[in-house]
Amino acid sequence: MIRFREAETEDVPAVVALLRDDALGAAREGEDPGGYLAAFERMRGEGANHLIVGEDEAGRIVGTYQITFISGLSLRAARRAQVESVRVAADLRGAGVGAAMMADAEARARAAGCRLIQLTTNATRERARAFYEGLGFTPSHIGFKRELT
Amino acid sequence: MIRFREAETEDVPAVVALLRDDALGAAREGEDPGGYLAAFERMRGEGANHLIVGEDEAGRIVGTYQITFISGLSLRAARRAQVESVRVAADLRGAGVGAAMMADAEARARAAGCRLIQLTTNATRERARAFYEGLGFTPSHIGFKRELT
Repeated sequence: MIRFREAETEDVPAVVALLRDDALGAAREGEDPGGYLAAFERMRGEGANHLIVGEDEAGRIVGTYQITFISGLSLRAARRAQVESVRVAADLRGAGVGAAMMADAEARARAAGCRLIQLTTNATRERARAFYEGLGFTPSHIGFKRELT
Repeated sequence: MIRFREAETEDVPAVVALLRDDALGAAREGEDPGGYLAAFERMRGEGANHLIVGEDEAGRIVGTYQITFISGLSLRAARRAQVESVRVAADLRGAGVGAAMMADAEARARAAGCRLIQLTTNATRERARAFYEGLGFTPSHIGFKRELT
């Protein structure tokens, strides 16, 4: 059984380890714990922005995702839930943790009054695409990014 | 000259009119002003979520977009700016309003300490794709949506 809950400060190193243990994350995550802790405090100051962890019965953090509730006028004033930074521990991939995590995200989105759940995945993540389509997501949009240097 | 500023309550009807005057928006926006006003109040309660309008010298609202600042641990604890619901008045499309609006979004993102600006567009919006690529955005991601019914 995996229990999903809001992350606490002491979970931040485990979350960063999950972010780093990833084909794309390995190259782009850093070693500075202070920067990550400061970002976690900023997240907590943004009331609708939540870092979630999945904890197994032994207390190990085996998955994480971020969910942000965004109100807006579009789509008949729909509130939407945006999911970012979904990661599952390498030794548990393919074992249903991701699906359980997305079910948890859906429940949180509904509880927050959202009518839409959205996310983007890097187009090189082919397994992720099949995973989200299998969960009923439609790949209707192009996701654009631009770094501000 | 177009001046970009945070929307006020009295701008909401003009913003909704811009959302509706759109190939996709015409079918999906409603007529209930109360719902849109309530959504605007919810936006204001989410501290990092902003509705921006572009106002011409005569006081007409000629463009709008939404920008949300999202802190997170990914990408070395980068804060990102997400842009949604970009619209330009029909009679001014192709006249540079969109580019001015995105320059305004970039300035707001930098002022908020963001290192990344991101958005999605429906894949059927071919002109939008060329527009964002021309502004230096990379279409690296697939945008998934799922309605919660």
